[in-house]
Amino acid sequence: MSRIDTAAVLAATRAGFELPAGKVYLDGNSLGPLHREVREQTLSVLRDEWGEDLIAGWNKHDWINLPLTVGDQLARLLGANTGEVLCCDNLSINLFKALAAALQLNAPRTRIVTEATHFPTDNYIADGLAQLLGPTACYVDALPLAEIEQLDFSDVAVLSLAHVDFRTGHCRDLPALTHRAQADGALVLWDLAHSAGVVDTALNRNQVDLAVGCTYKFLNGGPGAPGFLYVAQRHQHADNVIPGWMGHADRFAFEPTYRPVEGIGRFLTGTQSVIAMAAARAALSVFDTLDIATLRQHSLQLSDALVAALQGHAATAGVECLTPMAHEERGSQISLRLPQGYPISQALIERGVIVDFREPDIVRFGIAPLYNHLDDIEQGAEALADILTTRCYEEPRFNQRHTVT
Amino acid sequence: MSRIDTAAVLAATRAGFELPAGKVYLDGNSLGPLHREVREQTLSVLRDEWGEDLIAGWNKHDWINLPLTVGDQLARLLGANTGEVLCCDNLSINLFKALAAALQLNAPRTRIVTEATHFPTDNYIADGLAQLLGPTACYVDALPLAEIEQLDFSDVAVLSLAHVDFRTGHCRDLPALTHRAQADGALVLWDLAHSAGVVDTALNRNQVDLAVGCTYKFLNGGPGAPGFLYVAQRHQHADNVIPGWMGHADRFAFEPTYRPVEGIGRFLTGTQSVIAMAAARAALSVFDTLDIATLRQHSLQLSDALVAALQGHAATAGVECLTPMAHEERGSQISLRLPQGYPISQALIERGVIVDFREPDIVRFGIAPLYNHLDDIEQGAEALADILTTRCYEEPRFNQRHTVT
Repeated sequence: MSRIDTAAVLAATRAGFELPAGKVYLDGNSLGPLHREVREQTLSVLRDEWGEDLIAGWNKHDWINLPLTVGDQLARLLGANTGEVLCCDNLSINLFKALAAALQLNAPRTRIVTEATHFPTDNYIADGLAQLLGPTACYVDALPLAEIEQLDFSDVAVLSLAHVDFRTGHCRDLPALTHRAQADGALVLWDLAHSAGVVDTALNRNQVDLAVGCTYKFLNGGPGAPGFLYVAQRHQHADNVIPGWMGHADRFAFEPTYRPVEGIGRFLTGTQSVIAMAAARAALSVFDTLDIATLRQHSLQLSDALVAALQGHAATAGVECLTPMAHEERGSQISLRLPQGYPISQALIERGVIVDFREPDIVRFGIAPLYNHLDDIEQGAEALADILTTRCYEEPRFNQRHTVT
Repeated sequence: MSRIDTAAVLAATRAGFELPAGKVYLDGNSLGPLHREVREQTLSVLRDEWGEDLIAGWNKHDWINLPLTVGDQLARLLGANTGEVLCCDNLSINLFKALAAALQLNAPRTRIVTEATHFPTDNYIADGLAQLLGPTACYVDALPLAEIEQLDFSDVAVLSLAHVDFRTGHCRDLPALTHRAQADGALVLWDLAHSAGVVDTALNRNQVDLAVGCTYKFLNGGPGAPGFLYVAQRHQHADNVIPGWMGHADRFAFEPTYRPVEGIGRFLTGTQSVIAMAAARAALSVFDTLDIATLRQHSLQLSDALVAALQGHAATAGVECLTPMAHEERGSQISLRLPQGYPISQALIERGVIVDFREPDIVRFGIAPLYNHLDDIEQGAEALADILTTRCYEEPRFNQRHTVT
């Protein structure tokens, strides 16, 4: 598909996003924007479903099955089968369950291998599980990626990795790493937070064992939108270590003993926010008429264009890019190393170019193929070139740090 | 305060609820209705905050601290101090953390005592934790309440009980049971799902150690609205067994090692749905000008009136009421034992009197003092009397069971 075709396919989709006028939004890797469908459908669930039908909504509108039905929307996007994905809770809680399930599935192995520079919460969760279970039942090895790529996995229970690194935008070789670890009998758990919706994860084709992610980045479910959990069908006999009534085989029988439902549903625990799930459902429906290959192609065209534009300006041509140039190693962001990254990111935001900053010196330009287009890329590159040329970021107002997410 | 005064105080509050015309809603113990403020504020967060400010909303609108600020709204209602309650996740997840914290706080004790007929998910979670930790670190004793009231707690780590029983509406003597268990060195964890917002829990005055609950019942946060976790200030040095980035002392430093923030915030794990939290915040704001004593008085007046009305009809006078008549033992519902409970509840719903059914034979009339009034009670009692008189529930259409929540 040529550049023009891809852009045309996506033009209608882009029009549905309610992006604020005068802003160039290049932070979809952190928080996706509001789509008209999300606003309208969430309001409708509030007013028409909850407001009118009250308690009857659980059956009438099938609220009770939203974690499964929204999970099935995700499954399509992730290359998984119906009944292999749940949408619920948040990434961290899902990761806790997935790691515990992996240890159980791969007993008596007790070693979790993770990347030393993994997204921090992923390693906190692994460490927390190890702390809870004790050293004879679980220990965590946090290693550099280069070491993981050469590792002997024959005593590893589970390898826990990010598909796309949140700092650098490096897309890992999911098929090869999965295959390599599995060849030694390890299970593999991928964090898809920065790849879902922009990179083809092809979970079934790649025989991935377990995966987790969130719906608030490239999937546009809203701030703090629910997480997801993928468990390959062959592993769904594992226990849920936080067994709650929503995973029971007969929820409303109120049996005194837990009896898990068959299938992915057993990994549910408590009741999910219907409002949050409805927003996620609407956001995912935007992907219904698109395929991941089209999105991926457009994403790569845009990140290529950003790199070219940066190379085309004298002020930006020498900036170090942390994101690999090889397409197969690139996620959907361009991360630049800028020693004055924080004030520079603030100066960009002040000009309406919304990017973000990650400690200690990384400015991230997120590329969201659903709504970004070439104009965004060109304006972003030009703004950065101008800021570096004029050195306006040396002004005091750009130097006070505050939290960003 | 006289009956007339209490009703007058609450009349303005009631007017804000967008209850469907022609229905008598007596199911607020299961799912609270929509309040105008919830609809308006949730839409505003979607459209004006997320839509306009995108990623900047995390700071500009303090989304990042919603679990703490909404927790503080809850603290006021529960009789706790600022900084002792978090609003997050769901009851089951919070219970898992609270039980694990109790075991750690009360080591080397390993025994969890719970009620055999506790809300099922509470016991599933305790059993799941015991399964995960192994028999030398944790075991669960599920006992009848009468036995718990006489128990020697000297080897009990934590007593886990419901404040108000979901089936019978029996309100347990929280002060006495807390005091009794603590006298033997046990900690006490209360599930407030059916008491928050309608019974004075007075957590600080009663020196409660730990508590959990949800915001979707009498607190009206919407279907599946977030749960809450109370940890008395004196216990906040305990570990969070699911340590995630939201509980880190410096979330955006992305440190490789978990370092918990001081205070209740350390019990957070992942990112919370801002939309769901905003709805809960708006729902709790309805309580701002009310005190729990006024609500409790109105609730008891209404449940007294329901009992009197049932006794006043020949058809209902003989129905067994499972809810105690003593005010101090009554929550905010009236539970009737009716052998044909399921078809009778369906016949009530068909007449616009929304109640619910619990296996095997319980019909629950929830009493929500924020919006129920005497007319609701009288209509509910009359509808039941008429149904029992005409035996319309014996018609086939009322006999097909389906799930209700």
